Amino acid sequence: MAVNRQLLLAKRPVGEPAPDDFEVREEELAAPGDGEALVKVLQISLDPAMRGWMRDTPSYVPPVGLGEVMRAGTTGVVVESNSDKLAPGDFVVGMLGVQEQGVAPDSALTKVDTNVAPLETYLGGLGMPGLTAYFGLTEVGDLKEGDTVVISGAAGAVGSVAGQLAKAMGASKVVGIAGGPDKCQWIVDDLGFDAAIDYKSESVGRRLHELLPDGINVYFDNVGGEILDAALANLAWGARVVICGAISQYNAEDGMRGPSNYMMLLVRRARMQGFLVFDYVKQYGEALQRMAAWRNEGVLTTREEIVEGGLEDFHPTLMKLFAGENTGKLVLQIAKP
Amino acid sequence: MAVNRQLLLAKRPVGEPAPDDFEVREEELAAPGDGEALVKVLQISLDPAMRGWMRDTPSYVPPVGLGEVMRAGTTGVVVESNSDKLAPGDFVVGMLGVQEQGVAPDSALTKVDTNVAPLETYLGGLGMPGLTAYFGLTEVGDLKEGDTVVISGAAGAVGSVAGQLAKAMGASKVVGIAGGPDKCQWIVDDLGFDAAIDYKSESVGRRLHELLPDGINVYFDNVGGEILDAALANLAWGARVVICGAISQYNAEDGMRGPSNYMMLLVRRARMQGFLVFDYVKQYGEALQRMAAWRNEGVLTTREEIVEGGLEDFHPTLMKLFAGENTGKLVLQIAKP
Repeated sequence: MAVNRQLLLAKRPVGEPAPDDFEVREEELAAPGDGEALVKVLQISLDPAMRGWMRDTPSYVPPVGLGEVMRAGTTGVVVESNSDKLAPGDFVVGMLGVQEQGVAPDSALTKVDTNVAPLETYLGGLGMPGLTAYFGLTEVGDLKEGDTVVISGAAGAVGSVAGQLAKAMGASKVVGIAGGPDKCQWIVDDLGFDAAIDYKSESVGRRLHELLPDGINVYFDNVGGEILDAALANLAWGARVVICGAISQYNAEDGMRGPSNYMMLLVRRARMQGFLVFDYVKQYGEALQRMAAWRNEGVLTTREEIVEGGLEDFHPTLMKLFAGENTGKLVLQIAKP
Repeated sequence: MAVNRQLLLAKRPVGEPAPDDFEVREEELAAPGDGEALVKVLQISLDPAMRGWMRDTPSYVPPVGLGEVMRAGTTGVVVESNSDKLAPGDFVVGMLGVQEQGVAPDSALTKVDTNVAPLETYLGGLGMPGLTAYFGLTEVGDLKEGDTVVISGAAGAVGSVAGQLAKAMGASKVVGIAGGPDKCQWIVDDLGFDAAIDYKSESVGRRLHELLPDGINVYFDNVGGEILDAALANLAWGARVVICGAISQYNAEDGMRGPSNYMMLLVRRARMQGFLVFDYVKQYGEALQRMAAWRNEGVLTTREEIVEGGLEDFHPTLMKLFAGENTGKLVLQIAKP
């Protein structure tokens, strides 16, 4: 029988995840049952949300159990199929987790076309991060033509798409907040953001006020912390604050820091709203069609940063994400088709 | 010429307002101009918002300037009138500030009928606090029949009305959070709240979970701080958090504390929204009519706590408010008609 290698969550991290919070295990590979397929995992998605999945507190999904395979979005190729919807050689996307091979029902695997976009793009711009950007702007941010839009984590997987979509949907001015001159240059020169703020070297609050003296209509937050506070201080009347993530706070040992400027919601009659992309699953098809077309026309640039390695590289690659070292979508490639 | 006495803001308070942040001055009383009336101030409204007005930071109204009369809602009686809309002897409500007499244009004074309710009620249940409760629930909280509702500061001027209005509008269960057994008993026994939580002796989070295991649909927040966090942890899916005030934070010397559980907005797909009653001025008439009818039918109980004194009593009475010593609307009565 074939052997599979898996990365388990061994301990619940305190603060930053440590290497020994994870453990590699070998197991005998199960054969696919009725309607299931065996998939060789090619790429593993690294997402800020993973930190939350490791935490044993109420959230939108149950935490990863200790001794369970670490949850992760993946791409892969079908090796063996007991489903008439999938055939060996098909490329798929699914939540197979951090392991070399996985068995899943066909309903949990989405076939993708590598002629439309490279495989990794289905973990990024044409995957969950892209959809998150799309629905955060449209359904939660209630983006209207002429709105001013500010995006934090603007060089990340979600933020880089959100800024481009905001422009494509008619925002009057899109400002991205990112860390370091390279990312700032990338989002302006390559992605078409109107301006960038380097939070590592500039005062975010002061720059927001200079760039958008009439305030922010839609603020799409991926980071939380001081940047969220700076944005709250610069809201326009009736602004919408989209709560998508809070990567600056996920590893805080003494708990999350709340936005101390939240009373600006009252001063500016604004709202702050949370969402999850899964709520809009029925609209995925339409959104992906629009985004693929924009990508095709060159309106939407997607970028993936691929780290090659094995399961052992999961932890250092995840830490790269929390250190903000990636530009665009960060992916760990553990095998080739 | 007649002499007027006024309470000025002498210094900007740091933390809790101190007695010498204020100063009494005598001035010669100006005569009312065209369309204006001279009003003898009878009652002064004490409001949590006053702390914000003393602060020199961007807000929904300009701060009270140093050396200016402290801003305040007031009731009074017209002494002299140069307006055909007001006659001597008329009772009025307006923002005359902390002074013994004041001159204002007729457009800034609202004539009230003391046969419908006592004068002080127009500073409370049938005044700004009552209207704040009304529009917070209806326009911001989007209250629907069958919703569970939680109100903080539930024995205060706004909270005590909000809980009763929520019941009158069809909430399935209304829980109030207040400080001390007397207030808790009052809101349940006299006002008809379904339950009360005494934040001084109980764990708010645990009690909310016990009382509303399916979560909170509408949370009306007057206090901020730990209680807001406890409520956020207990939201139902799609909940609305109405940001009305944050009295627990107004005197904090090291700045406001933000709600560290704000990511529950994402987990529960909830929204947090701020508002000010002034936004709904066109609907005041209709709201007051409904509330006066409810008050008449005994559905709405309003309570005012009247402190008798002079301008010198403004500071100690304000501190009573921040110490949570009042039940219902706190009013300083400086003269009789």
